[in-house]
Amino acid sequence: MAEPLPDLIQEIVSDNSTDDTGAVLDAIVSQDDVAVATLLESVPVEPRLSLWQDLPSERKLDVLVEMRSDPREILIDATEEEEWSALFSDIEAEELLELMDSLPNRLVDLAYAELDAQQQTFFREATQFNDDQVGHWLTHDLLVLPLNAKVRDGLRLIRRNVPRHCDTIFLVNRSGQFSAVVRLTRIFGSPEHVPLVELIEENIPVLKGSDESTNASLQVQRSGFAALPVVDDSNKLLGRLDITSASELINEFYERQVMATAGMDEDEDLFSPVAKSARNRAVWLGINLLTAFLASWFIGLFEATLQQVVALAVLMPIVASMGGIAGSQTLTLIVRGLALGQVTKANTRALMVKELKVGGVNGVIWALIIGVVAYFWFTDVLIGVVICLAILFNIVAAAIAGVFVPVILDKLKIDPALSGSVILTTVTDIVGFVAFLGLGTLFLL
Amino acid sequence: MAEPLPDLIQEIVSDNSTDDTGAVLDAIVSQDDVAVATLLESVPVEPRLSLWQDLPSERKLDVLVEMRSDPREILIDATEEEEWSALFSDIEAEELLELMDSLPNRLVDLAYAELDAQQQTFFREATQFNDDQVGHWLTHDLLVLPLNAKVRDGLRLIRRNVPRHCDTIFLVNRSGQFSAVVRLTRIFGSPEHVPLVELIEENIPVLKGSDESTNASLQVQRSGFAALPVVDDSNKLLGRLDITSASELINEFYERQVMATAGMDEDEDLFSPVAKSARNRAVWLGINLLTAFLASWFIGLFEATLQQVVALAVLMPIVASMGGIAGSQTLTLIVRGLALGQVTKANTRALMVKELKVGGVNGVIWALIIGVVAYFWFTDVLIGVVICLAILFNIVAAAIAGVFVPVILDKLKIDPALSGSVILTTVTDIVGFVAFLGLGTLFLL
Repeated sequence: MAEPLPDLIQEIVSDNSTDDTGAVLDAIVSQDDVAVATLLESVPVEPRLSLWQDLPSERKLDVLVEMRSDPREILIDATEEEEWSALFSDIEAEELLELMDSLPNRLVDLAYAELDAQQQTFFREATQFNDDQVGHWLTHDLLVLPLNAKVRDGLRLIRRNVPRHCDTIFLVNRSGQFSAVVRLTRIFGSPEHVPLVELIEENIPVLKGSDESTNASLQVQRSGFAALPVVDDSNKLLGRLDITSASELINEFYERQVMATAGMDEDEDLFSPVAKSARNRAVWLGINLLTAFLASWFIGLFEATLQQVVALAVLMPIVASMGGIAGSQTLTLIVRGLALGQVTKANTRALMVKELKVGGVNGVIWALIIGVVAYFWFTDVLIGVVICLAILFNIVAAAIAGVFVPVILDKLKIDPALSGSVILTTVTDIVGFVAFLGLGTLFLL
Repeated sequence: MAEPLPDLIQEIVSDNSTDDTGAVLDAIVSQDDVAVATLLESVPVEPRLSLWQDLPSERKLDVLVEMRSDPREILIDATEEEEWSALFSDIEAEELLELMDSLPNRLVDLAYAELDAQQQTFFREATQFNDDQVGHWLTHDLLVLPLNAKVRDGLRLIRRNVPRHCDTIFLVNRSGQFSAVVRLTRIFGSPEHVPLVELIEENIPVLKGSDESTNASLQVQRSGFAALPVVDDSNKLLGRLDITSASELINEFYERQVMATAGMDEDEDLFSPVAKSARNRAVWLGINLLTAFLASWFIGLFEATLQQVVALAVLMPIVASMGGIAGSQTLTLIVRGLALGQVTKANTRALMVKELKVGGVNGVIWALIIGVVAYFWFTDVLIGVVICLAILFNIVAAAIAGVFVPVILDKLKIDPALSGSVILTTVTDIVGFVAFLGLGTLFLL
């Protein structure tokens, strides 16, 4: 069995003695491409580059394909100019499509020139689509037969070669339009003279090249087939989306969601160079700073009040924080619903009502608890009343914002997973501070 | 083609006139199980229950299996006691395993009694494993032959029946121990008398029943096979983990990560009853409240300072907020790395160094910017200096906490995706407030 990844990371990171470099390298090379890619992403830049130098040339392209963009680009930058021709010698359209965003244009051109005519066509076809469309991620290894083919023809085709993750033969009509699908397993059991049209699958979903890739990938995952056919607008067969590509697209989609909550993207490198990483994150910090200054400006409106009732300054963060947490719960639920297509125009209203009720219940409960604690802390009934009302108000506002912010962002085609939380927190901060300090000014001065 | 989901949601939610109920129901029933499950999750409880009543009995179990636990339990509670025998009449072990956490014990017993002896064995075997272990999620439809079988035997087996997502025959020795794997596609092309052992795959990963399910599922996804064999400690073949189950397990893993950032779990129902939803979220609000009170208590230590320099109260949230954002970026990166096995004991130190450098760079830049703005706002150099130092201090502290908090939680077997952010924010709030108000007390009083 292959050596576990943590041990290899340990050996690469800890080891500067060159005694058993050979042994470590052998252990690494014996891993599959994904494992080597993961390993390269898991070590700092220096050992990463030296490992990259030592990696057998014939593995390099396959490993690059499996890496995230950011760590990959470091290796691409460090690769000698004259090495590329060799690396590209066996490149295929699908690999170039995966790599092209990381490669400088001249290298894309160089790689393109290495493709044969067929692969060049595939590449050009795929680049007609955006990378969030199915057409960009097609597999072109197909089993295709004309509509009038028989089981005999099917068996002959299968005996020659069956591509990976391919469990069907596609039937096309004379003009190359997609017509139907036959499972390979139905062919094995049938007499040779039976026409394939008698064995076709009903109700198989057919994807379009222009379909959004995440939803299409979910369709593949749940179809029970290893791949679904993909056609263009005139029903011409373009290729298929197989379950490996579908799974990768879905994993990327989820990683994007997770990383977006902190204003990063899924390609962020664990060990990116400090300057690059600082720059990536600075944008998000800057946006946050603007909203924080905005909140402070609102607080500043109540300077006179704060000066007289310092307890307000002490308790202020509690109001903002409870609103932020309550809002982020609603937001997270709605963002997931939008991403999975479960939140639509039709049920937004019903969701709003439900979230308002949940916010109302939690608002009342926590407002009372916090009010009582604040009363005992500062032995002042009015402070208790003021924070109680402010909390209730802010949690309800958070529920409203938690539904509306992502729904509106989604309608504006802005990713709510990325910008939702920063807008929501701005709302709950400002509403919280203004409600609390405003009520404080009314009741306590 | 099937009617799109949003339209169906629209029709179910908006429509109380009963004119075309039949037509809507027909459109729903024509969808696949996952689509019906998604639809039921996407509508409020009342229409959900009425749709459930109308759903053909033979679809109900399959649809339940595809739903999330929370919305599913609402339907289970609403199902008439005498209906269950009929629903369970064709149940299989895998379905019962999926449902068992949502069912009351007496219903699990009822369903178990409906399984045949073979399925009961599968069920009992699976429940020996936890639901985060591969053994819990096995598929038992296998193509198995003895080690000495020939291509002829393989072809006979394939002609009889090939299960879904099955592209290999497993070879076992006389004592039922797993020995090797042959791809179906290699069998088609080979002469009938060739022994299968001559066609076996090298380097196919073999899973153990006790393996952690997410990592094992990733292995399946990247293996290029439709399923991987699963064995017990004595190498006896238990079943296989197919790519559909693997994909579902991975999707659930990612959903858990996304929802955990807001203190929820992946089974949260878009339209759960208000009481249940409020209760689910109250825990998280309560934990957050404790940490908010803790932060306030620290602020309270500086009441005298706040009274004299009200600008500190105005600027206070900026310090906490910048620390929180910077920390959550580091945290999110590390949590993902831990989940994917990329962050280990071996590289924690190197990560710490890198995050400290990134924090240092961003700390200095933003500290200076904020310091200058604060100086112009309050026309007081010392206020600028104080907030500048506090921001720098807090962003660096955030980097340290962003690495250590998740690593330590992970070592304590506590999910860092869930509790990481609340602990991190507590650290950055307290460090930020104490640094800012402490420095304010030193410089400004």
